[in-house]
Amino acid sequence: MAATNPLETEGQPGAIALRVHRHRGGTVETREDHVGQEWPVALVFNGISHAVMMCTPRDLEAFAVGFAISEGIVGRNADIQDIEVYWHDEADLPHAEVHLTVVQQAFVELKEKRRALAGRSGCGVCGIESIDLLDLEPEQVPDTGFVARLAPDAIARAARELPQHQALTKLTGGLHAAAWCDENGAILRAFEDVGRHNALDKLIGQLVMERADTQQGFVFLSSRASYELVRKAARVGIPMVATISAPSSLAIAIAKRAGLRLVSFCRESGYVDYETA
Amino acid sequence: MAATNPLETEGQPGAIALRVHRHRGGTVETREDHVGQEWPVALVFNGISHAVMMCTPRDLEAFAVGFAISEGIVGRNADIQDIEVYWHDEADLPHAEVHLTVVQQAFVELKEKRRALAGRSGCGVCGIESIDLLDLEPEQVPDTGFVARLAPDAIARAARELPQHQALTKLTGGLHAAAWCDENGAILRAFEDVGRHNALDKLIGQLVMERADTQQGFVFLSSRASYELVRKAARVGIPMVATISAPSSLAIAIAKRAGLRLVSFCRESGYVDYETA
Repeated sequence: MAATNPLETEGQPGAIALRVHRHRGGTVETREDHVGQEWPVALVFNGISHAVMMCTPRDLEAFAVGFAISEGIVGRNADIQDIEVYWHDEADLPHAEVHLTVVQQAFVELKEKRRALAGRSGCGVCGIESIDLLDLEPEQVPDTGFVARLAPDAIARAARELPQHQALTKLTGGLHAAAWCDENGAILRAFEDVGRHNALDKLIGQLVMERADTQQGFVFLSSRASYELVRKAARVGIPMVATISAPSSLAIAIAKRAGLRLVSFCRESGYVDYETA
Repeated sequence: MAATNPLETEGQPGAIALRVHRHRGGTVETREDHVGQEWPVALVFNGISHAVMMCTPRDLEAFAVGFAISEGIVGRNADIQDIEVYWHDEADLPHAEVHLTVVQQAFVELKEKRRALAGRSGCGVCGIESIDLLDLEPEQVPDTGFVARLAPDAIARAARELPQHQALTKLTGGLHAAAWCDENGAILRAFEDVGRHNALDKLIGQLVMERADTQQGFVFLSSRASYELVRKAARVGIPMVATISAPSSLAIAIAKRAGLRLVSFCRESGYVDYETA
């Protein structure tokens, strides 16, 4: 379905090489280094451009599927009838468009939603313009017993093994990763992106496309935990989110409401979980 | 103008205390810890709710001014005639609203802009729905000679001194900071937030309210450098942005277009700057 990413022929899609000057003490060393690509990526549903995300241009099909599902635009992968990715690798503004064809019902609902929200500005929480429109009532994550079955060292193992799945981060020093782990902490899938939300959307999209059981695994994120990451995970029934860095107050609150376990400061040496008042 | 933040009476606005369980090896220690507050904060212009940002609830007046200016809603602080902050510290959904009264011309332009963009979804780049609407032509930052006057150890000094201005990060382990530094790297102002964009908006707002010369200093950020951070800095003529972590490809490109110096991986021991092809 997707066209070829011209960058893949260069062997390192997602990063570009450039000359940098490293200043250390009084010396300057000029050398080649790599930085993560940040491209505008337009998501177009049934011909109507819906959003532009700043995104690392790889795995865009998975990204679009994950975004459509985690943002509630479609209820399931079967509602997406076709996806085409168009690459525009222009020197002055490289960008991409992902065209999704969704079933009529989803498109009608999207148009209704867009009409209801007409005129909103879009900064902040996915374009929400007033507090009343905030969706702070997450789906209940079904308790399938996954968290109870988690191996005692699963989080430590995921923390130890994540760097092996962060090729772009190793190259650039600065992308986020989202990984899917089994009950032993083995990493089954991992995605990188300049945006942590995008990395999670790529992961969710891939799981959904593979018809993986999103209730039987946990997400391990290289980032902090904020509202939206937990909200996205809850939407597809993921029972646990583990993050390397700190959680926010609202991430904790939403996780509790959804019945989703949130653990943070996850390292090989330990992790932290949270009570709410 | 602003009402009192009830949390300030607790001595630690921006963070809340809760019970956590620290797992280490086979042991679990239950203790009190702190997490950064993430609140929905609605920005309301002349009575019309424009955006909801997920934000750490302190310095909201500076935040609102900075947002209004860095997003181009008003051209200057004098266009903002009044600001009122309303705190809603409800247990189930603490949130805040910032009501700005802006001059009629700015409000008319905002309404026009909202009409032109009616129906857009708002995810991603500040609600932009199609690539054509992206603003990738930043203002030219005037060369006032500031960068040439920068002390050789200014970046190292800012990197060394930033932690002294990160009280919330010390408490919670996870907020972002944006600091304003002089040509010697002395930190003059610093703000923290769960969102790096918000931290920068708070800083820009404070500088603007103080009538500081934004062309005579540099911004030091605890985060990575992405498109929007550079874009916001360029809008108020800031000549240099220094970040602790990595830049994205588009951050580098936009900085070059604006004539703004971007340096990254800024530590006491050194920093990196970038060439574009």
